[in-house]
Amino acid sequence: QQQQAAVSPAPAKTDALLDSLKWDQNGLITAIVQHVDTGEVLMQAFANRLAVQQTLLSRRATFYSRSRREQWCKGDTSGNHINVLGMYLDCDKDALIYLGDPVGPSCHTGAHTCWFTELQQEPHGLRLEGEHTSGRHVPRTTLYALEATIAERRAAMSQQQPGEKPSWTAKLLSKPELLCSKIREEAGELCQTLEENEGSDRAASEMADLLYHSMVLLNLQEVPMEKVLSKLRQRFATSGVEEKESRKAQ
Amino acid sequence: QQQQAAVSPAPAKTDALLDSLKWDQNGLITAIVQHVDTGEVLMQAFANRLAVQQTLLSRRATFYSRSRREQWCKGDTSGNHINVLGMYLDCDKDALIYLGDPVGPSCHTGAHTCWFTELQQEPHGLRLEGEHTSGRHVPRTTLYALEATIAERRAAMSQQQPGEKPSWTAKLLSKPELLCSKIREEAGELCQTLEENEGSDRAASEMADLLYHSMVLLNLQEVPMEKVLSKLRQRFATSGVEEKESRKAQ
Ligand SMILES: [Zn+2]
Ligand SMILES: [Zn+2]
Ligand SMILES: [Zn+2]
Ligand SMILES: [Zn+2]
Ligand SMILES: [Zn+2]
Ligand SMILES: [Zn+2]
Ligand SMILES: [Zn+2]
Ligand SMILES: [Zn+2]
Ligand SMILES: [Zn+2]
Repeated sequence: QQQQAAVSPAPAKTDALLDSLKWDQNGLITAIVQHVDTGEVLMQAFANRLAVQQTLLSRRATFYSRSRREQWCKGDTSGNHINVLGMYLDCDKDALIYLGDPVGPSCHTGAHTCWFTELQQEPHGLRLEGEHTSGRHVPRTTLYALEATIAERRAAMSQQQPGEKPSWTAKLLSKPELLCSKIREEAGELCQTLEENEGSDRAASEMADLLYHSMVLLNLQEVPMEKVLSKLRQRFATSGVEEKESRKAQ
Repeated sequence: QQQQAAVSPAPAKTDALLDSLKWDQNGLITAIVQHVDTGEVLMQAFANRLAVQQTLLSRRATFYSRSRREQWCKGDTSGNHINVLGMYLDCDKDALIYLGDPVGPSCHTGAHTCWFTELQQEPHGLRLEGEHTSGRHVPRTTLYALEATIAERRAAMSQQQPGEKPSWTAKLLSKPELLCSKIREEAGELCQTLEENEGSDRAASEMADLLYHSMVLLNLQEVPMEKVLSKLRQRFATSGVEEKESRKAQ
């Protein structure tokens, strides 16, 4: 052991840092996987010391299985690895976040995320609602809740009764010229907040308008927001936004 | 007990569902709090049966403290409650997500999130980087990584050497007319993908362009993306986007 330390000073320092984590009575800490583009929480498991070290070195999400009593690299059997772009430790050092770019679904059921069941408190008691195939009861943060609302409005258009007033979203979805004129108008209003010095609250409102109307267009073009974010990440990881634009601007 | 069930059938059904959760040997399951607008993972703790029931009824994030051996409602001493808008259960029923709208910082250190320390694998071994005051080593998903990159470019502008070529972002930040003309141009290009039927990949690229340029404007206007999302949530929770726009369109 002493000889190994002499060859490479690395393990000693790493060992000391790993010692400082707050392992529970079974030698485990919580490991939470979050999607790097969407922010979705994809899965939660536990990691022992070796699983943390293997994740650090392989950059693939690795855990410790409490039932099988061994480390496992997610995807070694299914092929659905999770590439780990960053690892973060919480304030009391007993929980890690693996910021990940998953290959395929993260859940063994085939679902995108392990959380597809909602707890609903109803007058007559608790209800569990949701199934892994539908993705209707996943925890949706604001951007994805808006995306889902737009998709619901579109789905409802075919059931529209004659004489029933369509929603504003349905109107935009059925009139591309109206939608495009609104997007251009909202972009102009956003610029105006800067040009006319209208303040940060107006700027936030106009950005909200622009985002909403653009997302209606994305729905018509069958583009999930996740794809837009994935493009943005690839671009600015390679400074692509900057490069492309400075080329054009010359 | 039989009489109670006769008065109100609710608890029996709720009890059966709570029985079906996979409590560990200490009667606990993992509880993860996620920010409803930004998707940030804010904190992780454990919940016992009573903590889950209290969260369901009070809609305030409640946990079980393993060290103090009691339930605690986060914020009861600090005032920093977390309002719970949704509760979700994972595939194997041993981990909950509380989708939350926090009042103030979620971490007892005063940090926004408990994850402010990054694990970095360097040639000479593991390194822990980050402190609760800086927020520089938090797990950043794509939208917030872009927001931070833009802010860094802006901060770097004051250290620009004479003759050094500024980044494209710095150029946009220093020339509001150029920025506004780019935002209008990108909005037009996004619309064109629909008008000219250019396909979903072009639409995703143009949306990425529009988002990036708009976020440069938001930086100049001191608007965090979180504020835009919070406005969007408030609007479509009350169908406000729809109402406002259909009024205007009449
Ligand atoms: Zn996703
Ligand atoms: Zn912790
Ligand atoms: Zn799962
Ligand atoms: Zn507007
Ligand atoms: Zn936040
Ligand atoms: Zn689980
Ligand atoms: Zn904390
Ligand atoms: Zn630092
Ligand atoms: Zn473009």
